[in-house]
Amino acid sequence: MAKIPVAILGATGIVGQRFVALLADHPWFQVTAVAASERSAGRRYGEACRWLLPTPLPAAVRDLPLTLVEPPLDARLVFSALPGEIAGPAEVLCAQAGHIVCSNASAHRMDDDVPLLIPEVNAGHTALLAAQRRRRGWPGLLVTSANCLTTQLALALRPLHDAFGLRKVAVVTMQALSGAGYPGVSALDIVDNVLPWIDGEEQKVAQEPRKLLGTLNEDAVLAAPFVVSAQCNRVPVREGHTACVAVALAHRPDTEAVLAALEAFAPSPEVAGLPSSPARPLRVHRVVDRPQPRRDRDAGGGMVVHVGRVRSCPVLDVRFVVLGHNTVRGAAGGAIHNAELLVAQGWGD
Amino acid sequence: MAKIPVAILGATGIVGQRFVALLADHPWFQVTAVAASERSAGRRYGEACRWLLPTPLPAAVRDLPLTLVEPPLDARLVFSALPGEIAGPAEVLCAQAGHIVCSNASAHRMDDDVPLLIPEVNAGHTALLAAQRRRRGWPGLLVTSANCLTTQLALALRPLHDAFGLRKVAVVTMQALSGAGYPGVSALDIVDNVLPWIDGEEQKVAQEPRKLLGTLNEDAVLAAPFVVSAQCNRVPVREGHTACVAVALAHRPDTEAVLAALEAFAPSPEVAGLPSSPARPLRVHRVVDRPQPRRDRDAGGGMVVHVGRVRSCPVLDVRFVVLGHNTVRGAAGGAIHNAELLVAQGWGD
Amino acid sequence: MAKIPVAILGATGIVGQRFVALLADHPWFQVTAVAASERSAGRRYGEACRWLLPTPLPAAVRDLPLTLVEPPLDARLVFSALPGEIAGPAEVLCAQAGHIVCSNASAHRMDDDVPLLIPEVNAGHTALLAAQRRRRGWPGLLVTSANCLTTQLALALRPLHDAFGLRKVAVVTMQALSGAGYPGVSALDIVDNVLPWIDGEEQKVAQEPRKLLGTLNEDAVLAAPFVVSAQCNRVPVREGHTACVAVALAHRPDTEAVLAALEAFAPSPEVAGLPSSPARPLRVHRVVDRPQPRRDRDAGGGMVVHVGRVRSCPVLDVRFVVLGHNTVRGAAGGAIHNAELLVAQGWGD
Amino acid sequence: MAKIPVAILGATGIVGQRFVALLADHPWFQVTAVAASERSAGRRYGEACRWLLPTPLPAAVRDLPLTLVEPPLDARLVFSALPGEIAGPAEVLCAQAGHIVCSNASAHRMDDDVPLLIPEVNAGHTALLAAQRRRRGWPGLLVTSANCLTTQLALALRPLHDAFGLRKVAVVTMQALSGAGYPGVSALDIVDNVLPWIDGEEQKVAQEPRKLLGTLNEDAVLAAPFVVSAQCNRVPVREGHTACVAVALAHRPDTEAVLAALEAFAPSPEVAGLPSSPARPLRVHRVVDRPQPRRDRDAGGGMVVHVGRVRSCPVLDVRFVVLGHNTVRGAAGGAIHNAELLVAQGWGD
Repeated sequence: MAKIPVAILGATGIVGQRFVALLADHPWFQVTAVAASERSAGRRYGEACRWLLPTPLPAAVRDLPLTLVEPPLDARLVFSALPGEIAGPAEVLCAQAGHIVCSNASAHRMDDDVPLLIPEVNAGHTALLAAQRRRRGWPGLLVTSANCLTTQLALALRPLHDAFGLRKVAVVTMQALSGAGYPGVSALDIVDNVLPWIDGEEQKVAQEPRKLLGTLNEDAVLAAPFVVSAQCNRVPVREGHTACVAVALAHRPDTEAVLAALEAFAPSPEVAGLPSSPARPLRVHRVVDRPQPRRDRDAGGGMVVHVGRVRSCPVLDVRFVVLGHNTVRGAAGGAIHNAELLVAQGWGD
Repeated sequence: MAKIPVAILGATGIVGQRFVALLADHPWFQVTAVAASERSAGRRYGEACRWLLPTPLPAAVRDLPLTLVEPPLDARLVFSALPGEIAGPAEVLCAQAGHIVCSNASAHRMDDDVPLLIPEVNAGHTALLAAQRRRRGWPGLLVTSANCLTTQLALALRPLHDAFGLRKVAVVTMQALSGAGYPGVSALDIVDNVLPWIDGEEQKVAQEPRKLLGTLNEDAVLAAPFVVSAQCNRVPVREGHTACVAVALAHRPDTEAVLAALEAFAPSPEVAGLPSSPARPLRVHRVVDRPQPRRDRDAGGGMVVHVGRVRSCPVLDVRFVVLGHNTVRGAAGGAIHNAELLVAQGWGD
Repeated sequence: MAKIPVAILGATGIVGQRFVALLADHPWFQVTAVAASERSAGRRYGEACRWLLPTPLPAAVRDLPLTLVEPPLDARLVFSALPGEIAGPAEVLCAQAGHIVCSNASAHRMDDDVPLLIPEVNAGHTALLAAQRRRRGWPGLLVTSANCLTTQLALALRPLHDAFGLRKVAVVTMQALSGAGYPGVSALDIVDNVLPWIDGEEQKVAQEPRKLLGTLNEDAVLAAPFVVSAQCNRVPVREGHTACVAVALAHRPDTEAVLAALEAFAPSPEVAGLPSSPARPLRVHRVVDRPQPRRDRDAGGGMVVHVGRVRSCPVLDVRFVVLGHNTVRGAAGGAIHNAELLVAQGWGD
Repeated sequence: MAKIPVAILGATGIVGQRFVALLADHPWFQVTAVAASERSAGRRYGEACRWLLPTPLPAAVRDLPLTLVEPPLDARLVFSALPGEIAGPAEVLCAQAGHIVCSNASAHRMDDDVPLLIPEVNAGHTALLAAQRRRRGWPGLLVTSANCLTTQLALALRPLHDAFGLRKVAVVTMQALSGAGYPGVSALDIVDNVLPWIDGEEQKVAQEPRKLLGTLNEDAVLAAPFVVSAQCNRVPVREGHTACVAVALAHRPDTEAVLAALEAFAPSPEVAGLPSSPARPLRVHRVVDRPQPRRDRDAGGGMVVHVGRVRSCPVLDVRFVVLGHNTVRGAAGGAIHNAELLVAQGWGD
């Protein structure tokens, strides 16, 4: 099978770089176009980009010329790692031009007819695309991946919601520097420090899980009936968000039942066959001091989400720690995973 | 007034050093004895101690000889910064020998007849000392300061409990390196990392606030009727614990009422007169990105506790962030503050 | 004596903030004006400035309105913490308008008739000001303080040059984050990393010490006859530059003679009387693992420079480590120190 | 070819873990025995070892029982990652018992008849083994790899010495935390700090390069005729030592000639065929801000050494920066590389 040509919008940023790295040896996709801001357009990727990853910049992308973030793009699929304010209109233009757009930006995540998608969580929500095509009249289509923290949270919540019925979710986060982009956080703000606030983050974490775990209802998703409280912090960690979670459940399981539900969580056969799917999306740790970002973030190429310290909670019902790689599973890897799902379901034809 | 001679047990550790630094110019107390493990006994303090603080080692203590952690001690008051397993019996021996013991160790905190004390929170709990003397027959006495995280938490909870009645407290912590002592945490465990577990910490944070905010009932403290869930993490910060807190309250105040209660919190006249009392024990921040450990931990010489990001909570009732200096307010400074209270109340006579 | 009114140009930056903090209780100077970029002009200092220091923003400055960085300024003395490209013309305008300008910027440091000044190193170089007035016709005057790293280096080199005659100086630096200003270095560039290059730094460190240790020759300074090699690195340290130095000397002293020369280094009576002068500008450490930035940078309010690990060198003659506080002694504190010298010498009349 | 069974002494330490990870898929070697201190002996490796690497603990080693660090060992080859004081006698016992010992410890590095070996630098020094067998009468043999910093330094110096004749070497280091082992450096000693001293390091860096670049002279190595000055510092970096180097050369090449010599440096055909040999042992960077530990340490699986900022030096002749992975190329990877060389040269038969 010839590889599907793909473009990356916002290719020089920190998430854009992750797209480039993750797509370097992808079995289905091949990067044929990279786009960035007007300032960089026309230059070679390797010259315009301050490459931040420890793995080398793939040779096949180094010499691609940067184009503007708009059609025409020499690609079938388009990955968007654009900043919020630009992403909205650019992604619509791409879908109008016939591209399959897999966005990591927040602009359209909560739109009624745009699937907010994590393959292991809600692969069926791609059914919204029928409504999207009908309403929008686009020859292309648009799906979104969730906020980085939301992604790892939703993966841990999915089996709990299915088995026990979520009622309340309280989450306190310790988020990595890469989540703020580059240059992002000043070293003077974070060395020997914690920042107790991340602009816009808490609202996303409060909203998005309810759509992700919601139920399809004709042409929209009915939000799942639980509430989320998020308190978001930045800590001096390069990659990997850690979150302390407490949940109230309709059925009050004991800790072993919770552990069993988490450990049994497996992808559907459709999802299991995707190139980016780890054998198990969750790794459950029973040693007392895990997960830790530096030790666990890279498991499964960064696509595994970790759960640990599962125990009962005297205030809600159950407590645990969730850790995930924010720029792989929580950003570029998640969007690629979504693209794989679309291809597997035939939306790419 | 001649200064009261004081001894420091465990004087070479990181909390012991804070005692030395904080007592350097104390108006009421003068360090006349320092004690440490058998290994160091007999050596001069300045030789045996690896001084870790940025301020210089006070000259008056540098040449004091280290003694064993047991009577006789050339002092009236004894501060204990001993590790838990040693602290228990050593503190009892000192009280039996007639010393006023102000301990920072956890060994006796939950004993029925031992006050667990924070001057602004429960100065009246020193009334337990009458029972202590009656039961134990000690010529001396023993009071304890709370766990570092508990201390800052209890200071923030006191006005909320008084005004609105606490029912539930959920706290997730991001704790500083100094809390683990020296050498404590290996750099390889914490640079670019978070540790999601601190041995023994969560139990202390769950128990101690209920005693601190409890009510005196004859010869014991009746624990306050709320539950606490604590999830404790270590982060790469030198000093200053940050905690995200959510509380359920019997009366459901709006955010402004909560802010007003916190801002109005002032020490009693008795406590306000103590040398270590800041004018206000709480500083309430209304800017969105404070408190931060590096920017706020040293306010009021490290004795001010900070509250910020006060807002309503969709899961419990109110959320906020609490920050305090863990080795000053949460350890050495807290124990010195307690000693000042005992002197002011006449227990030192 | 009424305090001399002073203005701070570039008052909102990281060095500007150090000026504000250091001048808060200055016995001779009082901040009466603060100036910053056009963007901030008109706003109150406390609103426009993201205050980064752990000590509180002084109340007297908080409400001062920010003006443009040009005359008229409501002050006699002007401190400049402006970025290089703006500093040059702005400082000239201020001297033309009659101000005594003490600059921390690099623009005019190497000008023939502008003293590059460190009071303990070359107080006599203020004699250049006669030539400056003659040539420039300014009613005011302009002196400069040296580059941060140069300052601490020159303080250590002065007694060695006097006693043994410097021939060669090789310096490798490990410089703090604050030296890059705010936001300056991205956390993603420096957490778990070293940057082996600092733009423009090596040239300054190679040139400036020769002027500082040079000899007055009519209307200019004859550069001292030694060469300097500088290799400059950025490390994850907040404040305090560390430098490993090796020197070749005309006379080849043994290590004890070098230590003796460093330890004997004392300010002249004129300089000793300045408010910012520490009793001894150098602290010589004989323990093997000092100086260290976190433990030593704050000594003497940040005005003491530390020398340690003095030993013979098989390649040049003598090796040692030098450490100083880069934004106090190496920036704001140094410029204030220079202003004090000018006042003491009567240039302020 | 059946894989050669190998044992790892000191297998649970940080270098021991690197051996385990690097040997997991080695084409020639298979780990059949792991040995550690008496305290761990008898336990399974996976239980006794606090695994610190981000890659998973290889399954084949997880269940191996830990033995004592002495013969008999179920292996042909023995890798030693023992601490210095234990390594000396243990390695001799192993060689006496017939094992091929490739040591990373310092105990025997400077012994006359023990090769100190880096394949690309001095593969011919294995000729010393004939003398070793004759003198010692061991059925086995012993070779050593160099100190971590020395290794990367010697790789950069080899082509310069060959082309231009080294006379003097001045090196200032910024060394990673992993070099101190685990737990090693306390976080309180290094967060926001630099330590200007590493016990014993400077002497090793001064001595070992002269043996590595020395010439074989009958039964010993005649040390190369240059002097080395080393000033060693610890910085808050997890892995990867950075060193600023200046050299004086007998022939004074211009910078381009130096760059050309470094870039031309290639392994001999014998060495090029070893599994751990990178195509080029040196990567020369011409951009101004490289190498950096986090960006460059992992190149070539950690076996590539980086050189950058090559330029002339006003004090000596040429300056540059060298960076290498201290626990791969500078420790476990280097010792494995030596073992490969021995096998290729037939010493393993």
